[in-house]
Amino acid sequence: MLGSTLNTHHQWLARELFQAGYLVTRQLTVADDGPSIQEAAREALGRADLILITGGLGPTSDDLTRELIAALLGKKLALDESILDRISSFYQDRQRALPPSTRVQAMVPEGARVLTNHYGTAPGLAMECQPNPYRKDGRASLLILLPGPPRELHPMFQEQVLPWVKQKFVLNQPFFARILRTTGLGESSIEEKIGPVLTGLVSEGLELGYCARIGQVDLRLIGRGVRAQEVVGEAEAIIRRELGDAIYGVGEVLLESEVVRMLTEKRQTLSLAESCTGGLIAHRITNVPGASQVLLAGFVTYSNTAKTQFLGVPDEIIRAHGAVSEAVARAMAEGARQHAGSDFALAVTGIAGPAGGSAAKPVGTVFIALASRDETRIVRQFNPLDRESFKLMVSQQALNMLRKKILEPV
Amino acid sequence: MLGSTLNTHHQWLARELFQAGYLVTRQLTVADDGPSIQEAAREALGRADLILITGGLGPTSDDLTRELIAALLGKKLALDESILDRISSFYQDRQRALPPSTRVQAMVPEGARVLTNHYGTAPGLAMECQPNPYRKDGRASLLILLPGPPRELHPMFQEQVLPWVKQKFVLNQPFFARILRTTGLGESSIEEKIGPVLTGLVSEGLELGYCARIGQVDLRLIGRGVRAQEVVGEAEAIIRRELGDAIYGVGEVLLESEVVRMLTEKRQTLSLAESCTGGLIAHRITNVPGASQVLLAGFVTYSNTAKTQFLGVPDEIIRAHGAVSEAVARAMAEGARQHAGSDFALAVTGIAGPAGGSAAKPVGTVFIALASRDETRIVRQFNPLDRESFKLMVSQQALNMLRKKILEPV
Repeated sequence: MLGSTLNTHHQWLARELFQAGYLVTRQLTVADDGPSIQEAAREALGRADLILITGGLGPTSDDLTRELIAALLGKKLALDESILDRISSFYQDRQRALPPSTRVQAMVPEGARVLTNHYGTAPGLAMECQPNPYRKDGRASLLILLPGPPRELHPMFQEQVLPWVKQKFVLNQPFFARILRTTGLGESSIEEKIGPVLTGLVSEGLELGYCARIGQVDLRLIGRGVRAQEVVGEAEAIIRRELGDAIYGVGEVLLESEVVRMLTEKRQTLSLAESCTGGLIAHRITNVPGASQVLLAGFVTYSNTAKTQFLGVPDEIIRAHGAVSEAVARAMAEGARQHAGSDFALAVTGIAGPAGGSAAKPVGTVFIALASRDETRIVRQFNPLDRESFKLMVSQQALNMLRKKILEPV
Repeated sequence: MLGSTLNTHHQWLARELFQAGYLVTRQLTVADDGPSIQEAAREALGRADLILITGGLGPTSDDLTRELIAALLGKKLALDESILDRISSFYQDRQRALPPSTRVQAMVPEGARVLTNHYGTAPGLAMECQPNPYRKDGRASLLILLPGPPRELHPMFQEQVLPWVKQKFVLNQPFFARILRTTGLGESSIEEKIGPVLTGLVSEGLELGYCARIGQVDLRLIGRGVRAQEVVGEAEAIIRRELGDAIYGVGEVLLESEVVRMLTEKRQTLSLAESCTGGLIAHRITNVPGASQVLLAGFVTYSNTAKTQFLGVPDEIIRAHGAVSEAVARAMAEGARQHAGSDFALAVTGIAGPAGGSAAKPVGTVFIALASRDETRIVRQFNPLDRESFKLMVSQQALNMLRKKILEPV
């Protein structure tokens, strides 16, 4: 409420639930005080079958949720010794002293189901509200308290909550969801290509969603009913026929992970020469565990001197064509590949802005080169975006150029 | 609601309002349909003086908010020609055809105040709900519809909404807020240092908040009443005395911006030799406009060969001490500085994990070196975090090492 923390819980939980066939209808954030928390819980009990509450289960004085919810539901709290033991060994393993306030985290409302926290101290707690005085028809609500830290929340939800939710709230018809990740095509051009050929399946109940990000469009395919999986499978086949290698992956996969996976599989190596992306491509590649097997070297060569000195770009080429040019991109990529002795080298040189543009090469102009054993390819792109979006877009374009090259039959 | 978009509006608006002395008490996200949107608005009208609604003002068929809210308040919509003209020229300037559905964005509910959109097409709309049938005491609510895209929302809020809110909702006492950004100290050690010496001011009404992130703790100081600004000023002086150069800036400032600013001011240059951070430091530096004046070169040298070849780290040193060692960090920094001819060079070598650790050098170990004209400093840090948090933490530690060096009297 003070604007110091970004709420990532909502997106994460909504996506997990949505991919399992459940729809979140309401997300509410309230101030960290008793009346606000209880009022929010009462409202939710009045409208929802499943209520997820995150945060406020820790040991400090502002962690009030456990007691407030227990009080609201009229349940007494009792100490659970096994939880206390688990928390004690958690601190012992980390050679840290047990804080005196720990006991509160081992208090369990009567009848609550305890969800073990394998990555922290406070367990999750699930409580049935039945009969439910807050709902007109008295229908039961299931209320689950979950820890706030994402690295505790995520595994607890995936391993313990979601399987149970699936058992408890059986969908009235089969549900099948799949996400296809694409790069290199705009949202409207994808829509033009696949919209018309999918009308048949859409009339059969296929739900098709587009989510456009910078340099990436995700396609969400959903089927319901007895033919759910079949309909999605048929749609995927049609989309693959239309979009071909613009699809880089299925499900939770990043472009950089896919590139590292492909290079690792083929035992091929990469070097980078980045001007306008300033290290972002290297950063993305090295976010992937195992990147050290793949990335031999990265050069961030903002200045002309650095381009000449570390990549061997001839000074004459820079003077003749300018630092942002096809010729310089080519020389950077070939220089990086030769110096590092890698199978591939990607190079980018462009104008991120806000300053530095001209009529012939406005802010947003970039040349991307890919040097390989057999050839060097260069593309010119125009990405009139703010500085950080420009960098991200160019990194997508460069990684995709490499991905497409690796995909080609040798 | 499908989990495809992260809600950044709430944090941003809450922070802007909080820093002006206003508290957000409730944030609600609902599905994109008529009943949900109207119910949410009704609820808000029943409890709040100021209601901000973002998104749903665009030209497509799922942009329903304008009509739904007008209907809820019983206001008719009329076409505003001046808005239509503005939207037409917006498209003309960009050499794009005017979409046929544009007119809807020029529809204004009767009595609404129009907030011009200088960065997009849909204007904001402010409506007074008075008398307010949704509130028990009939008290008026001010309801403001704002565009969803952040680059339209942010300037509209700062330039048009906030000044007006300040006039309309005059605080019943003066309010003064200030954020001090620190790095290099943990939250609890900061609390130990400043907590005791601030008790006097806290009893005078100073509100003190801590917000811990990776490698950074922000301190929020708030004063209210006639002495608001004085109290905050006195607190800041005390905190500066206790924390000294752990404070790197005030307000909206990033560590990398501060470092680029300092280097630019002193006309000094930097080069980077990154192993375990894999380009993140270069990426952060180059996010700052004007970084090209400062960053001469960056090397991402994951492999031992690259360290030897591009930074001149002697092979014997790597064999004798291992790639993650004080000696290699020193040689990397000195090599980068010499090769690039920069005033400073930062080098990092460490174990990001998940693999690669040992008993003597567990995952999370890192050596950071700073080479300058007069000396080379090296620190060893231990950051047992996940891979991406580790990279971020190390980049903070490295940038801070440079910042402190620049701060020293020559």
